Amino acid sequence: MAEEAAVRAQAEVVRRLKHDKADPDEIAKEVAKLLEMKAQLGGDEGKHKFVLKTPKGTRDYSPKQMAIRERVFNAIISCFKRHGAEVIDTPVFELKETLTGKYGEDSKLIYDLKDQGGELLSLRYDLTVPFARYLAMNKITNIKRYHIAKVYRRDNPAMTRGRYREFYQCDFDIAGQFDPMIPDAECLKIVHEILTDLQLGDFLIKVNDRRILDGMFAVCGVPDSKFRTICSSVDKLDKVPWEEVRSEMVGEKGLSPEAADHIGEYVQLHGGLELIERLLQDPKLSQNKLAKEGLGDMKLLFEYLTLFGITGEISFDLSLARGLDYYTGVIFEAVLLQQENDHVEEPVSVGSVAGGGRYDGLVGMFDPKGRKVPCVGVSIGIERIFSILEQRVEASEEKIRTTETQVLVASAQKKLLEERLKLIAELWDAGIKAEVLYKKNPKLLNQLQYCEDTGIPLVAIVGEQELKDGVVKLRVVATREEVNVRRESLVEEIRIRTSRP
Amino acid sequence: MAEEAAVRAQAEVVRRLKHDKADPDEIAKEVAKLLEMKAQLGGDEGKHKFVLKTPKGTRDYSPKQMAIRERVFNAIISCFKRHGAEVIDTPVFELKETLTGKYGEDSKLIYDLKDQGGELLSLRYDLTVPFARYLAMNKITNIKRYHIAKVYRRDNPAMTRGRYREFYQCDFDIAGQFDPMIPDAECLKIVHEILTDLQLGDFLIKVNDRRILDGMFAVCGVPDSKFRTICSSVDKLDKVPWEEVRSEMVGEKGLSPEAADHIGEYVQLHGGLELIERLLQDPKLSQNKLAKEGLGDMKLLFEYLTLFGITGEISFDLSLARGLDYYTGVIFEAVLLQQENDHVEEPVSVGSVAGGGRYDGLVGMFDPKGRKVPCVGVSIGIERIFSILEQRVEASEEKIRTTETQVLVASAQKKLLEERLKLIAELWDAGIKAEVLYKKNPKLLNQLQYCEDTGIPLVAIVGEQELKDGVVKLRVVATREEVNVRRESLVEEIRIRTSRP
Repeated sequence: MAEEAAVRAQAEVVRRLKHDKADPDEIAKEVAKLLEMKAQLGGDEGKHKFVLKTPKGTRDYSPKQMAIRERVFNAIISCFKRHGAEVIDTPVFELKETLTGKYGEDSKLIYDLKDQGGELLSLRYDLTVPFARYLAMNKITNIKRYHIAKVYRRDNPAMTRGRYREFYQCDFDIAGQFDPMIPDAECLKIVHEILTDLQLGDFLIKVNDRRILDGMFAVCGVPDSKFRTICSSVDKLDKVPWEEVRSEMVGEKGLSPEAADHIGEYVQLHGGLELIERLLQDPKLSQNKLAKEGLGDMKLLFEYLTLFGITGEISFDLSLARGLDYYTGVIFEAVLLQQENDHVEEPVSVGSVAGGGRYDGLVGMFDPKGRKVPCVGVSIGIERIFSILEQRVEASEEKIRTTETQVLVASAQKKLLEERLKLIAELWDAGIKAEVLYKKNPKLLNQLQYCEDTGIPLVAIVGEQELKDGVVKLRVVATREEVNVRRESLVEEIRIRTSRP
Repeated sequence: MAEEAAVRAQAEVVRRLKHDKADPDEIAKEVAKLLEMKAQLGGDEGKHKFVLKTPKGTRDYSPKQMAIRERVFNAIISCFKRHGAEVIDTPVFELKETLTGKYGEDSKLIYDLKDQGGELLSLRYDLTVPFARYLAMNKITNIKRYHIAKVYRRDNPAMTRGRYREFYQCDFDIAGQFDPMIPDAECLKIVHEILTDLQLGDFLIKVNDRRILDGMFAVCGVPDSKFRTICSSVDKLDKVPWEEVRSEMVGEKGLSPEAADHIGEYVQLHGGLELIERLLQDPKLSQNKLAKEGLGDMKLLFEYLTLFGITGEISFDLSLARGLDYYTGVIFEAVLLQQENDHVEEPVSVGSVAGGGRYDGLVGMFDPKGRKVPCVGVSIGIERIFSILEQRVEASEEKIRTTETQVLVASAQKKLLEERLKLIAELWDAGIKAEVLYKKNPKLLNQLQYCEDTGIPLVAIVGEQELKDGVVKLRVVATREEVNVRRESLVEEIRIRTSRP
């Protein structure tokens, strides 16, 4: 594209300008030349000078979408605060080497910044690695924090399913050396509270443990070197049937058919405390040190979850195997269940909305002396939740307000702009949310229509008679009721009429 | 650095893997080889494997800093909502060409992303250009919105003065065809409200108009081609004395000494309505069409500001010339004034904390048919404000809470973890903000100390006697007062005792 050539030429000029000590007039001339070049190119291609879009895999949020987003964030932040979390923030990019070696095969999805002279930088891929870097850098060994921010992945997004290249993560993590499984249980309680609070329908939180998985692979005869790759095959079981996963293991990954079949028996198991007890008696698993440790902790976890009263929505599931390299203990993932109906026998999962686990080694990777800080955390998959709620709002024809304006300051006659401005300044200064149309002489009908359109509940009308009488006419948009209010009582009257019960 | 070589080698492998259809075992082998290579390098360089820092010009926010940040954001968002603004969000990066040609000399400060195959992308430099792109793309001709997000500039940051390469902007803009100066006046009212609300001390909002500046340059004999570069010299007047600016104009930029001296007379003028009236009679300026238009609107603006009651902190200042290319009408900038003391005659400005202006041409640059949408907006310089408030908190020894926890669930004896967990789940489910120490048998003293350290006001203590009696001992941390509360009344009791008056 010719346009791109101009962009590149400009980049070239900028680079030269940066390195030479150019004088300002030179710069001005160069820039003028480029702008001209650009204008000409625009001319060649007709009037459409720009590709008017957001980058692939990203989107703008409209005011209506933002209103939904705010609701969801409020529910999540309330929950995090209810559990005593502090909040931190980190930069959107990190030194490239901070991210290197943390994400296994997914490293290819990291966005790098251009080398413009200086450090090599990459956009963050998640909030967990920056958190670990933050802990190591500040020698923090003990913190409970949340962090809500955007992360970046050069994925091939299926945007209809709520997947993007830029998306929010809402993370809650507990770092520190504590007695086993108490923080882990709290993370699951948090997921349960948030999904209940958001009323997304039935959900299930699947739980497993990396040590149980690794122990299982060992007793099934998977060679050590294949643990990770076989684990990533198991990870696909929520999307493809066992037969396909088995043939990937045996065909592509060279696992023996016997080992695969053995795995196949284990990964279909799911249940609660009884299953854990049974596996603790399993002749093979009980002989494996890792598996035994994992099962012991899983039992403790389920005891705590029973005290929290949430085991009804939690399933110990041996097929759960989250992809990330850094997990070391318990792992979990929450899925929404399709609404049951007459045609479906068992509820079907429609996608993951939260996930997390324990990662006891990650902070040590950053510490100069390798000191470990045990961590467990959860990440809420907010984009999927937005999509669901957005669709629901669309379907319900619920009218979502995008502002919180309590009152429109209006006038019934001409030449009252000054009076409207004086009144609205009084209201603003008293903390009332108020608007005024930016017209010298708006028609009353248009002002009322504006309230209808945007959901403003009250109109404060100034007219010549009202000014003489020292009153303001307050109109309730919904009922068309009108009442004269003394000017000095107006603020109080608006407050009473717009306070939520 | 050897480390960098490994990183580059890895990037190379990833690139190859991306383009070929590599099989998973190949990938695993390659990655293993690289990790080994990395480990060896680490060995060569001793135990310090990573540079533990955030990228140049960026910083993390600690929980304490976030608590201050939240206060400031709340004040700003309240004000924006009070004025009826909707909220939008846009991606952190834009197509590179979206930003091209919008920032004049500052374009060299834009962060570009690496070309990883796909679109050429840049991090946003401000929120105004993405806003204009959003309006044009969605054919919106009428909106009042705010947007709070981080922007990126490859500046050489003076971080002690609150300048960073990654920093927040808080923007409020009004787009649409309206009667003159009403939205412009509201923007200034907003700056006034926010700075008053934040109690940052005395401030001054300087106002000027691009048309008055251009008219002034014309009547002073500046050639058209030098308007922009002379304007950027004038822009420096808040930092360097006139003599230096004059010598830059005459020496570096080749302006005639007479023209420079003529400008020098104008730019020392500042005042209110009387100054505007005087300049409207100025024999030269009044003959210039642009200047006359600008002065006429300035007069109208000051009339509205008088109705808003805020002219005391506003100064029409002919030396104000904001750097950005896209302004077309009124421009303004708010500065904090140094606290007066006996040694200083006149208050001195210590830095800009807000700025903005009218940009009627920007949206048209994005519209395929060049349709214009007039806009005016303000940007709050939040980082400077953070720095000031942070310093103030440090100096005052004010203790800032970083959590909102209302109650710690504690026990006086051993073996009561289960009872603590049962009680805290009840509290969480009732919406109480509660914490528990993650220990099986914590000492009561340690639990009370935790409350002292983190500012938790209440402790709910379970013990064997209390369990038998169906009560919980509620302790007020500040007074050490203890009272037995029936378990079913506990939630209500905590609510009453922690509700703010």
